[in-house]
Amino acid sequence: MNAPLSAEQLEAGLRKVGEERYHDKHPFHQLMNAGKLSKGQLQAWALNRFYYQAMIPIKDAAILSRMEHAELRRAWRQRIIDHDGDNADQGGIRRWIALTDGLGLERAYVESLQGVLPATRFAVEAYVHFVRERSLLEAIASSLTEMFSQSTIRERVSSMLARYDFLNVDVLAYFDKRLTQAPRDADFALNYVKREARTVQDQKAAIAALEFKCAVLWSQLDALYYAYVTPAFRPPGAFNPESVA
Amino acid sequence: MNAPLSAEQLEAGLRKVGEERYHDKHPFHQLMNAGKLSKGQLQAWALNRFYYQAMIPIKDAAILSRMEHAELRRAWRQRIIDHDGDNADQGGIRRWIALTDGLGLERAYVESLQGVLPATRFAVEAYVHFVRERSLLEAIASSLTEMFSQSTIRERVSSMLARYDFLNVDVLAYFDKRLTQAPRDADFALNYVKREARTVQDQKAAIAALEFKCAVLWSQLDALYYAYVTPAFRPPGAFNPESVA
Repeated sequence: MNAPLSAEQLEAGLRKVGEERYHDKHPFHQLMNAGKLSKGQLQAWALNRFYYQAMIPIKDAAILSRMEHAELRRAWRQRIIDHDGDNADQGGIRRWIALTDGLGLERAYVESLQGVLPATRFAVEAYVHFVRERSLLEAIASSLTEMFSQSTIRERVSSMLARYDFLNVDVLAYFDKRLTQAPRDADFALNYVKREARTVQDQKAAIAALEFKCAVLWSQLDALYYAYVTPAFRPPGAFNPESVA
Repeated sequence: MNAPLSAEQLEAGLRKVGEERYHDKHPFHQLMNAGKLSKGQLQAWALNRFYYQAMIPIKDAAILSRMEHAELRRAWRQRIIDHDGDNADQGGIRRWIALTDGLGLERAYVESLQGVLPATRFAVEAYVHFVRERSLLEAIASSLTEMFSQSTIRERVSSMLARYDFLNVDVLAYFDKRLTQAPRDADFALNYVKREARTVQDQKAAIAALEFKCAVLWSQLDALYYAYVTPAFRPPGAFNPESVA
């Protein structure tokens, strides 16, 4: 029987998960950052990722509904406010729509979720079910992919602006905002996990929760690569880039 | 506002879903039936599909728990009995293990579910959540892929026996049994759906449920094709055929 990790060792263990499994290492993201995706492939990515974005407040509300302490709730509710905004013209989901607009996708089609890959749906729904069904510690730990997102976003925005002339700063406003939101959210969640995961069992569960979340993100890119890069087999009903002007 | 379909029209609508979306049309199955998959690729298929098999009784128990009439329950419980058997040496899950045994996979590794693709987990779990959360009609309609399995299984068994010399009748016993079980189960479920889905809304929901289930099966093959055929990118932690003797 091992002794529990120190808080610093636990943080190192969590960071190691990111080094090995965060989706910045995925071939689809590598193509994106190298400017090698076609507009149609970027459309497919933005369209599918919209579903993930649209479910994030639902995921966070599920976590919020399980928090017994108002102090925790007050911090966590900000995620929902950030994502939903104060009206229909604001918030992270709206900023994602600016991206799909900029890519020439019809807004009603994006919001209808028609054309989203089944594998995207299943992965996103697995995430929502995970935070409903697992411990609060695991639910919070699963959010820690935000620890790894900053450098990815920075690299993505600068390379996308440089390489895709149909994109501009306004279209990519979502990512800009996340550069300040994500570290604040990640710090809060990391401090919670370091404070609350003190047994070997809880520490293993926290690390496994972060591995699970990396798989949720990674498998969405697997599905995109499969359907839109190689072998480029689109499942029945999936978005067809050629059908868009 | 359209009028509801007749029972025969509804059946035709359900069969059309199978013609368009059942996974016998998937390139991975086409490679399998043409004898063009390597042993390692068949191993990956059997290993991932084991998770689906292992969750089927859980899925059926969730449906059973929602049936208010003993008459329905008596018919449905047979699925669980068939799949779990009367002891550890019987039942559909055990027959699937005969297949993974025959393919040279270590039983403890298969049953540990380590190595299963995340996309397999998410698709299978989406199925379990679907039958828990949707109406009983939709839950039952989602089982109707069994209407389409017979000819697929017949083709698969004969072509696998002819082309893969490491397979034999005992190893493929799972499929043999399904040739009698699946039509019985499918007839019962189809009659239920034809009898109970009488409004336009319920008929649409039944058809959508069957489309959903086709996507559950199809996306599992998408993930296998992606990870083990082309581009053959294995997600972190996934089964590595080269690591097996």
